[in-house]
Amino acid sequence: MGSIDSTSLQARLLCRQNLLTNTSGVAPGYLQANLLILPAKHATDFHNLCLRNPVACPLLGMTSVLGDPHRIKPAGCIQSPDFDVRTDFPKYRVYKSGEHCESRLDISELWTKDHVAFLIGCSFSFEDALTEAGLTPRHQQTGSIVAMYRSNIPLLPAGVFTGGRCIVSMRPYRPDQIEQVREVTRPYLSTHGEPVAWGWEGAKELGILDIEKPDFGEPQQFKEGEVPVFWACGVSPQIAVEAAGDRLDGLVFAHEPGHMLVTDWTARDLEKLRSGGI
Amino acid sequence: MGSIDSTSLQARLLCRQNLLTNTSGVAPGYLQANLLILPAKHATDFHNLCLRNPVACPLLGMTSVLGDPHRIKPAGCIQSPDFDVRTDFPKYRVYKSGEHCESRLDISELWTKDHVAFLIGCSFSFEDALTEAGLTPRHQQTGSIVAMYRSNIPLLPAGVFTGGRCIVSMRPYRPDQIEQVREVTRPYLSTHGEPVAWGWEGAKELGILDIEKPDFGEPQQFKEGEVPVFWACGVSPQIAVEAAGDRLDGLVFAHEPGHMLVTDWTARDLEKLRSGGI
Repeated sequence: MGSIDSTSLQARLLCRQNLLTNTSGVAPGYLQANLLILPAKHATDFHNLCLRNPVACPLLGMTSVLGDPHRIKPAGCIQSPDFDVRTDFPKYRVYKSGEHCESRLDISELWTKDHVAFLIGCSFSFEDALTEAGLTPRHQQTGSIVAMYRSNIPLLPAGVFTGGRCIVSMRPYRPDQIEQVREVTRPYLSTHGEPVAWGWEGAKELGILDIEKPDFGEPQQFKEGEVPVFWACGVSPQIAVEAAGDRLDGLVFAHEPGHMLVTDWTARDLEKLRSGGI
Repeated sequence: MGSIDSTSLQARLLCRQNLLTNTSGVAPGYLQANLLILPAKHATDFHNLCLRNPVACPLLGMTSVLGDPHRIKPAGCIQSPDFDVRTDFPKYRVYKSGEHCESRLDISELWTKDHVAFLIGCSFSFEDALTEAGLTPRHQQTGSIVAMYRSNIPLLPAGVFTGGRCIVSMRPYRPDQIEQVREVTRPYLSTHGEPVAWGWEGAKELGILDIEKPDFGEPQQFKEGEVPVFWACGVSPQIAVEAAGDRLDGLVFAHEPGHMLVTDWTARDLEKLRSGGI
């Protein structure tokens, strides 16, 4: 799985040395991953949350041995033995009782033998595919951060994780482009796949009342006649942690948004990553 | 996988001969399955709908060869070679352009070499587990049909399947029983798993305004202090077909609600059926 060259490993080593901050545009073609790390006590509930909400929380991989930050399953996601989930993201968030209390460049001192790490798909790869199809996302053209909104789509509950809602990212397109946009992103099931809603009516159904006021990221410019197209977003797991609040014991870690892990998987591996075994 | 005795095969043969109508309570311990059959053209979209909405549409199996009604993958779901998906459900519904236009005892004459069949998990098995835990569902005590409601939880779109909403089934419990009810049904990921909402506040959030007026099935009796508990329901795929309407070419078939397929899998096989390969 994945090309065995050193591009992705080099990117991770630069992140480890804190020579890279934002991974947007780094190691083109390689999948990047969102992160969530929890105490073992909550790991099964979070695993179930991913399995029950695979569009918002598509599971790419997880640590294979409790407390071991060096090994990820399934094989192929990280091919080099020189890996450390505590240092190889550029920046981390620390959560206590569901609240983001600090950000750090590495979490080696806070990681315990009781922690489990989950890697969650991100939309990076389908943005490449959109660009190749002549449908470059607006925020890439304008150099801004994609607009993200809290939607009313529930994250279906799993154990301690109740009350969360799906975060959606938004890219403007013309109505006549929407079917092609849906087709291009459809195969990327492990990185949110096709849109969850589109058009002004779709925005209303998601409970998004003011498109000019995203909850995260930056407002996007609309050209005449364009409408919003919404995808599920990998920030959703952090919202699930916030919603769980003080029902969570121990420290929880996540990546700092935009500061992702570069994996060894490429877009070509995504077909093998379709969730479900049938 | 599954016990190799003849109980489940005998049940299927009785259904084939139309000697059984409603499969509720038939072959206890064996998983029963909902059905959806579509022309090949729409099969990938429906498969994606299941993968993106595994709580409402948990995929148990599908025909392994296009147009062959005798073989189901993965192995174990149906162990006997004497199987025919066109006859071994007690009763079928025929849909044309998303509309239920007739019901039939078998669909041998309507099946074509271009059809693909999908088996979807049903809540039968977790009801056994609830009963074993002393939490017998009310509709089993009263001999009524479980109450089902249209909810506002969207079925996340997949290709031609847009605009569908999740159907939920409802069982009344006391607030102090809810955590145990959640725990008992949590492992049954392939048959809808733990509840999606509970309590009167939960009903309101699902958009269910009058609990006395279910959209399918029968109203349930509440004892003093009890509140509604909602699970995703295997009728949802039929709602997805209705929502797709005349975007669907060719005949689509489903089971008649309550008239399920008895599979060779037992509750013990469910752990192996957890969706996701990680």
